[in-house]
Amino acid sequence: MLGVIRVFTTADDAIVAAHGQLIASLFGLETRSYCIPDQPLGIYDAASHQQAVPKIVAAAKKAAEDGAKAVFISCAADPGVQECRQVLSIPVIGAGSAAAGIGLAMGPRVGVLNLTGSTPPAIAGLLGKHLAAEAAPQGVRNTTDLLNQAGMSAAIEAANILARSADVIVLACTGYSTIGLAKVLRSIVGVPIVDAVEAGGTVAFYCLARRMA
Amino acid sequence: MLGVIRVFTTADDAIVAAHGQLIASLFGLETRSYCIPDQPLGIYDAASHQQAVPKIVAAAKKAAEDGAKAVFISCAADPGVQECRQVLSIPVIGAGSAAAGIGLAMGPRVGVLNLTGSTPPAIAGLLGKHLAAEAAPQGVRNTTDLLNQAGMSAAIEAANILARSADVIVLACTGYSTIGLAKVLRSIVGVPIVDAVEAGGTVAFYCLARRMA
Repeated sequence: MLGVIRVFTTADDAIVAAHGQLIASLFGLETRSYCIPDQPLGIYDAASHQQAVPKIVAAAKKAAEDGAKAVFISCAADPGVQECRQVLSIPVIGAGSAAAGIGLAMGPRVGVLNLTGSTPPAIAGLLGKHLAAEAAPQGVRNTTDLLNQAGMSAAIEAANILARSADVIVLACTGYSTIGLAKVLRSIVGVPIVDAVEAGGTVAFYCLARRMA
Repeated sequence: MLGVIRVFTTADDAIVAAHGQLIASLFGLETRSYCIPDQPLGIYDAASHQQAVPKIVAAAKKAAEDGAKAVFISCAADPGVQECRQVLSIPVIGAGSAAAGIGLAMGPRVGVLNLTGSTPPAIAGLLGKHLAAEAAPQGVRNTTDLLNQAGMSAAIEAANILARSADVIVLACTGYSTIGLAKVLRSIVGVPIVDAVEAGGTVAFYCLARRMA
């Protein structure tokens, strides 16, 4: 079983389970999803990131106690990934580092599509000089804005700009996974698109199904 | 179908097909294997590397003509990967860059187990500062030497040394895949082991089965 940690608070089990179900459907892995307490707005700045880390570690420990053979932290900023690795003996996979790693495996010039702001350090640090370009959709403040035509058009425009100087585009927000942006971009943009939840699932599949850890 | 390019010459179809069959058995992908002409000793220095590149490009083109939806160059030095990407519109996966990418996805301090010499530039360049340590089994000149007890012991010793300063160990020679070293090390060494052919298969699985490219 793969433990999937969502880094926000909700009582809606379907929302909590969404990324785990995506991984289950793509890779045939059993997943069990967890969310953290008392952060309904999730992680949105340095303070909320720090606040979330011990909660993520606690959720990952719970997953391991429940029988998880690996844990996936479903956030492109990799919150708590390092801390979880220090206390757990099972593989700990972060959406950001998984997406960066799969991106590097597909081409040396990696373009990063952020939701807002600049590339998370967890991704930029792994890519190093292979971070060829970064962009964010203009006028978009959160994934909800992508659900309307203007937001989706802005995301496509940003991806098309990245494709001019990148061999592969990494989607650096798991909110993009929730709305299925990768599928849309794959029919439009001329370079491979790496979805962060799918990338985490790919690495988890290797860890779990092949018992590599 | 995944085209698998072996970078040496042999008339033995079973040897040519070995890595493709490994990927087929692990990931359920259809594979078709190709070898290059007139290099029975494969790639062993800069001259033989250069000599092989146009042959690898020709083999990859043939694979694409035969219906390959992605090509895997099964050598940790990634010979011809860049050149194939310039002429093919399908994903081109190198064993070295795939192993480096999967390694980075599993931990920031990557140890590299080479067969002889230092880490191939294709791997070192992607890992950058995350190349935490490198080693090669003492007294081993080629994969044949690993088939005896002394060679296998030397490989285990080198991996144990790497594990002291690395979160994950990447096997930087596809000859290690042929002899099944990863499985041996996983029962002995306390950090995850990334096999280069398995890593290539993992990335190919994502590219092909999920039609991401």
